[in-house]
Amino acid sequence: MEKHTSEHYAEQLTDIRGRVLRMGGLVEQMTRRVIQSLVQRNAELLPEVQSMETQVNQLHIEIDEACLELIALRQPTASDLRFVAAAMKINTDMERIGDQAINILECAESLLTVPPLKPLIDIPRMADISQDMLKDALDAFVNGDDDLAYRTILRDDDVDQLKDQVFRELLTYMMGDPSTIPRAMDLILVSRHLERIADHATNICEDVIFMVKGKDVRHHGPLS
Amino acid sequence: MEKHTSEHYAEQLTDIRGRVLRMGGLVEQMTRRVIQSLVQRNAELLPEVQSMETQVNQLHIEIDEACLELIALRQPTASDLRFVAAAMKINTDMERIGDQAINILECAESLLTVPPLKPLIDIPRMADISQDMLKDALDAFVNGDDDLAYRTILRDDDVDQLKDQVFRELLTYMMGDPSTIPRAMDLILVSRHLERIADHATNICEDVIFMVKGKDVRHHGPLS
Repeated sequence: MEKHTSEHYAEQLTDIRGRVLRMGGLVEQMTRRVIQSLVQRNAELLPEVQSMETQVNQLHIEIDEACLELIALRQPTASDLRFVAAAMKINTDMERIGDQAINILECAESLLTVPPLKPLIDIPRMADISQDMLKDALDAFVNGDDDLAYRTILRDDDVDQLKDQVFRELLTYMMGDPSTIPRAMDLILVSRHLERIADHATNICEDVIFMVKGKDVRHHGPLS
Repeated sequence: MEKHTSEHYAEQLTDIRGRVLRMGGLVEQMTRRVIQSLVQRNAELLPEVQSMETQVNQLHIEIDEACLELIALRQPTASDLRFVAAAMKINTDMERIGDQAINILECAESLLTVPPLKPLIDIPRMADISQDMLKDALDAFVNGDDDLAYRTILRDDDVDQLKDQVFRELLTYMMGDPSTIPRAMDLILVSRHLERIADHATNICEDVIFMVKGKDVRHHGPLS
């Protein structure tokens, strides 16, 4: 009986981990597709992004429920409790990454109805780094790899720098030719949404470090 | 002994509630001050906002620790667990409101070094509504008032509409006179940061409803 219960407990933890990964894969796909649609100027990829968001929202609710149920019924130990608390926080960040992908989708919808301003400057590169950060953050979570989490956090600065560069370039465009303003504004917003995706990946890494080390690196850690 | 333990337990819950309120008061003040500094064109108010953020970051860590400790050592019942889970989520949203106030501060710093573009359009009104929403969200949390939480969520649409209006007006400005672009961009960003403060207040309300009703209104509720 004891054995049976503890097996079920381990299954519940595995189930939570699996759902977090599924959700992470979905928001990563959403970001990838929406940027692909911008780069290829192909609006046909957008409805799929929208339908992935429905699944993300469903998982968001399910993960919170599974975590609360486990806490309520199982009284997890210190390290399992940290895992569950991290899963709940990561859940929130992933849901907001999905929101950012939808924000980018809205910019893409308007950008794809007008002629392109010019190649997308550093936006595809920002997207690549943000997606890599998210992927590494989730790998760090699954493997309890705080070292990977630390290294991933450091890449956030690259994204911030690219965002500033995109902003400066587009500002020059706008000032030179006011007819480019609406398109340039949309691209600036896309770059800010990507920056926020990288921020959420950073949050996830901080939660992983807390989970592994039992210490809070937010605000006072060597990295902030 | 039993009595003593349960008194201490009640104290811990009260302590968490108190810290959440203190942090809420701080992020509300931060938002108020930074907008005041923009309206009055008074950069002297800004250092205080920065020092409040240090306190907010400290409370952010303390609240999470207090919540995890209570869950680990006290095995809270269903409704207390929902309260603690809500406190942790609200904690995250409040910390991000503080981040938004700092983002506004950065825009203010650059706006206060140049002549004003014109009166700040609807930005002060957006700030008023966002601050009210935050205040009501925290009142709803403290009093377990899901009705107030529902009503507060509805106001988020007003903020979104004002944000779109600010954007349209400033776009017209920029297109008419490219020399206004850098200032107009800063104001557009301020309005987006305010919109995000209102979004976080909305998240807090959703957590309050979950805490009171035990049901999840995110994504599938009548309001989303």
